Amino acid sequence: MPHNRARVRAYVDSSPFQWFIIGVILVNAVVLGLETSPRLMEASHGWLTALGWITVGIFVVELGLRIYAHGRDFFRDGWSLFDLFVVVIALIPASSGFGVLRVLRVLRVLRLLSAVRSMRRVVAALVATIPGMASIGALLVMLVYISGVMSTQVFGDTDPEHFGNLPNSLLSLFQIMTGDDWAAVTRPVTDEHPWAWAFFIIYILASTYIVLNLFIAVAVEALEKQSDDDAREIVEEIEEGDTEILNALSELKDEVASLRAELSQRP
Amino acid sequence: MPHNRARVRAYVDSSPFQWFIIGVILVNAVVLGLETSPRLMEASHGWLTALGWITVGIFVVELGLRIYAHGRDFFRDGWSLFDLFVVVIALIPASSGFGVLRVLRVLRVLRLLSAVRSMRRVVAALVATIPGMASIGALLVMLVYISGVMSTQVFGDTDPEHFGNLPNSLLSLFQIMTGDDWAAVTRPVTDEHPWAWAFFIIYILASTYIVLNLFIAVAVEALEKQSDDDAREIVEEIEEGDTEILNALSELKDEVASLRAELSQRP
Amino acid sequence: MPHNRARVRAYVDSSPFQWFIIGVILVNAVVLGLETSPRLMEASHGWLTALGWITVGIFVVELGLRIYAHGRDFFRDGWSLFDLFVVVIALIPASSGFGVLRVLRVLRVLRLLSAVRSMRRVVAALVATIPGMASIGALLVMLVYISGVMSTQVFGDTDPEHFGNLPNSLLSLFQIMTGDDWAAVTRPVTDEHPWAWAFFIIYILASTYIVLNLFIAVAVEALEKQSDDDAREIVEEIEEGDTEILNALSELKDEVASLRAELSQRP
Amino acid sequence: MPHNRARVRAYVDSSPFQWFIIGVILVNAVVLGLETSPRLMEASHGWLTALGWITVGIFVVELGLRIYAHGRDFFRDGWSLFDLFVVVIALIPASSGFGVLRVLRVLRVLRLLSAVRSMRRVVAALVATIPGMASIGALLVMLVYISGVMSTQVFGDTDPEHFGNLPNSLLSLFQIMTGDDWAAVTRPVTDEHPWAWAFFIIYILASTYIVLNLFIAVAVEALEKQSDDDAREIVEEIEEGDTEILNALSELKDEVASLRAELSQRP
Repeated sequence: MPHNRARVRAYVDSSPFQWFIIGVILVNAVVLGLETSPRLMEASHGWLTALGWITVGIFVVELGLRIYAHGRDFFRDGWSLFDLFVVVIALIPASSGFGVLRVLRVLRVLRLLSAVRSMRRVVAALVATIPGMASIGALLVMLVYISGVMSTQVFGDTDPEHFGNLPNSLLSLFQIMTGDDWAAVTRPVTDEHPWAWAFFIIYILASTYIVLNLFIAVAVEALEKQSDDDAREIVEEIEEGDTEILNALSELKDEVASLRAELSQRP
Repeated sequence: MPHNRARVRAYVDSSPFQWFIIGVILVNAVVLGLETSPRLMEASHGWLTALGWITVGIFVVELGLRIYAHGRDFFRDGWSLFDLFVVVIALIPASSGFGVLRVLRVLRVLRLLSAVRSMRRVVAALVATIPGMASIGALLVMLVYISGVMSTQVFGDTDPEHFGNLPNSLLSLFQIMTGDDWAAVTRPVTDEHPWAWAFFIIYILASTYIVLNLFIAVAVEALEKQSDDDAREIVEEIEEGDTEILNALSELKDEVASLRAELSQRP
Repeated sequence: MPHNRARVRAYVDSSPFQWFIIGVILVNAVVLGLETSPRLMEASHGWLTALGWITVGIFVVELGLRIYAHGRDFFRDGWSLFDLFVVVIALIPASSGFGVLRVLRVLRVLRLLSAVRSMRRVVAALVATIPGMASIGALLVMLVYISGVMSTQVFGDTDPEHFGNLPNSLLSLFQIMTGDDWAAVTRPVTDEHPWAWAFFIIYILASTYIVLNLFIAVAVEALEKQSDDDAREIVEEIEEGDTEILNALSELKDEVASLRAELSQRP
Repeated sequence: MPHNRARVRAYVDSSPFQWFIIGVILVNAVVLGLETSPRLMEASHGWLTALGWITVGIFVVELGLRIYAHGRDFFRDGWSLFDLFVVVIALIPASSGFGVLRVLRVLRVLRLLSAVRSMRRVVAALVATIPGMASIGALLVMLVYISGVMSTQVFGDTDPEHFGNLPNSLLSLFQIMTGDDWAAVTRPVTDEHPWAWAFFIIYILASTYIVLNLFIAVAVEALEKQSDDDAREIVEEIEEGDTEILNALSELKDEVASLRAELSQRP
C-alpha cells in the first residue's frame, strides 16, 4: 500500500501532470467566462455545461489522488485546502438556495495561483509586504474616518447626497482620495462654504502624502532585501580575504617561531 | 508621597492600562461616528451620549493620573499636551457658542497616534521627511502662483468661472495639477485661444515633473538611511578585519623582534 | 567585388550617411503628419505626395545598399528586417484592397528606433524589463478576469451598459482600474446594491496594489543593476587589496625562508 | 575706486541685504497677485501700483549696485542675466503695444530662484535630470505621434471633434495618456469600431509603461549618486586599511631584512 502511495505521489507531483492540470484550469476559466453569455449558452446546446462538468470531474479525481498520495500532509498545506475549498463549492448544487455560491465558482480560476510555482512566490511576496504597511495604512484609515465625521457634521445639510451620513461621507472621501472627479464632488459644498476648499485641499495633500509613503514603504522593503544581499556578499568576500591573510600570517608566525626554536636548540 | 507617585506611574505606564485606554479611544471613535446619525441618536434614547461621556470621563481620570504620576514632565511632552488639548475641547459645552469645537471633538481619535507606539514612530517618520521637501514644494507653489496670475490676466474674461480671479485660478490650476477633469476645465479657454493648449500642457508637464521629484526626494531619503546602514555595517566589518590582521602582524613583529634579541645575545 | 562591398559597407555605416537617413526619416514623419490634412494635401498640388515618394525612394536605395553591403547578415539582424518590413509596406499600392496598410505606413517613423543608437538601447532596456513583470501581470489579468465574470453575473441585469456581458465588464473594470470616472461607472450598480461598494473598493485597492508592485518590480530591477555594479566594484577592490597583501606576505615569507637558509648554512 | 567696489560688493553679497531683497521679491509677488483684482486695484486708490513701482525701483537700484560691484562678471552669470531680464521687462511701458510683456511681469517672482541658494540647487538638480530622460521622452513623443497619425486617418470621420485633424488627435491622445476622462473621449469611436478598444488599451498600457520608465530613470539617477557615494566611502575605507597593513608588512620586511643583513655581517 505505501508503495502504491509513493507511485501515485510521484505521478501527481510530476511535471506533465501538473501542466495538464494547469491546462484544465485555463479551459475551466474560459468556460466560466463563456457561461456568462446566455446567447452562447443556448447556442452551445449543453456542450459548455458538459465541458464545465468534465473539468470539475478532473479536479475531483486530481484532489482524490492528491489526498491519497499525501495523506494527512494534504490537510496541513494551505494551498491544498484552498484547492479543496473551491472544488467543493463547485459541487454544491446551484439550486440549493446558496445563489452566492454560483458567483464564488469563478474563484476556481485562483487555482492557477497554487498550480503555478512562480505565481505562488509572487503572491507570497505580495502578502509579505502587507504587515509593513499596517501602521501607515491605519494612519490613512484614521485620516479618512476623522475627515468623514467632520464633513458629515458640517457639510451634511449642504450636500446630503455626498455627505448626508457617515458611510456616504467615507465613500466620497475615498473617491476624492483616488482623485476621481473630486472637483465635481466638492463643488456643491464649496459653493456654499468657500473655506471648504482649504479642508479638501489639505485632505487631498495629506491623503496623497500618506499613500505615497505607503508606496515608498513597499518599495523600500523590496529594495532592502536586494541591498542586504549585496551587503552580505561583500561582507563574505571581506571575511574570506581576511581569513586567507590571517592564515598566511599564522603560517609565517609558525615559520618564525620554528626558526627561533631551531636557533635556541643550537648550542 | 513620592512612593505613591511611583506606584501610580508604574500603573499608568503599564501595558494592560495602555491597552485599556486604546480600547476606550476606539469605543469613543465609534461613538463619535454613530453620533453623526440623528436617527441612531434618537433610537439610542441617550445611551450613545452617555457612552460618549463615560469615555470622556475615563480620559479625564487617565489624564489626572498621568499628570499626578509624571508631574512637570507631563507638560514637557508634546504628545501629552496634545492629549490634554483634545480632552479639554471635549469638556467645553457645545452650547458655549464655539460651534466649531463640536467638530474638533473628533480629533480625539488622534489620541490613537499618541497611545500606540508604532503609530508615533510612523508619524515622526512622516513629519521628518517634510523638511527635505521644502525647497521642491516652494518651487511647486511658485509654479502654481505664477501660472495663476498669468491665467487670471489672460483667461479671466474668457472663462470667469475658472479663471475670473486669482483664488479661482489657483484652485483650477490645483485641480489641473491633480489631473482631475483638466480637459473639461480648460475647454472654454482653449476654444477661444487655441495656443492656450501649449500653456496648459507645459503647466501639466512642469507640475507633474516637480511633483514626481517631490516623491523621489521622499523615497531617496527613505532609502538613504537603509543604504547608509548597509555601508556602515560593511565599514565596521572592514575595520574589524583590518584590526585583526594588524594585531596578527604586531604579534609577528614581536616574534621577529624576540628572534633578533635572541640572535644578538649570541656571540 | 568583395572589395567594392567593403567600400559600400563603410559608406553605409558611416556617421554622415546615418545622420542623413535620420533626417530623411524625420522629413518622412512630418510628411505623413501633413498628409492627414485633406486641405493641406490639396493646397500642396501634389508636392507633399511627391516628397513622400522621394523619401520612400531614398529608403529603397538605402536598403538596397545595406543588403548589398551586409549580404546575408542583413537578414539575420532583427532591426534590419524591421526596416525592410516598413519599407515594403510603403510600396504596396494603397488601392490593392489592403486599406489597413495605408495606416501601417506611419510605422515608418519607428525606423528612428533602429537608426538612433541610444533609442535602440532604451527600447532594448524597456523590453528587457517585461519578463520580470510577467507573474505580477498574470495576477492582475486574473484579478480583472475573475472580477469581470463575477460582475457580469451579479450586476449584468442592473447595468447592462457597463456590465451586460463579459467584454463590457472587462472594459469597465479596466476603466475603474485606471481610476477614470470610476464613481460614475459604479453609481447605477451601487444605487441598487449598496454592498457593491465593498466589491468595487476591494477591487480598486487590490488592483492598485498589484499595479504598484508591478511598477516596483520594474524599478527594483533597474536599481539592481546599479547596486550590483557598485557591489562588484567593491568586491574587486577587496580582492585587489587582498592580493597585494598576500603578495607582500609571500615576499616576507621568502625573506624569512632565506634568513633561515642562511642560518642553517652556518655552523 | 576698486576699494569702493569691494565695499559695495561686500554689502551687496551680505546676508542681511539678500534677505531684504528676498522680502522685496515676496512683497512684489503679493502685489502682482493683488493687481489681478480690478476691485482691489480701485479700492487701493493707487497705493498698490505705487507699491509695485517701489519694489521695481528697489530692484533697479539693487541691479545697479550688483553691476557696479561685480563688473563684467555680472554679465557672465546666467542667474544675474535672468534677474536683469525680468527687471527690464518691468520697465517697458505696458502701453508700448507689447501686451504680452504685462503678463511676463509675473516672471519677476522667479527671482526667488536666483535669490535663495537652496532653490538654485533644487532647480539645478531638476534641470540636470532632464538629459537622462531624453531618449525615453523621444520614445513617448514617437508613440503619441504615430498613434495620432493613425487615429486621425481611421477615426477622423467618426469623431471629428477629438480626432478630426492631427493637432486634435495629439491633444486627445495626450489627454488619454494623463488618464483624464479617457473612457468618455474614446466612447464615440468605440461605439462605431468595437476593435478600437484594443487600440486605446494598448496605447494606454504602452504610454503608461513608458512614462513609468521615465520616472524610474529619474529616480534611479537620484539614487545612483547616493549609492556611488556609499561605494566610494567603502572603497576608501578598504584602501586605507590595505595601506596600513601593507605599511606594517613593509616595516616587518625591513625588520627581517635588517636582521638578515646583521647576520651576514657576522663572521
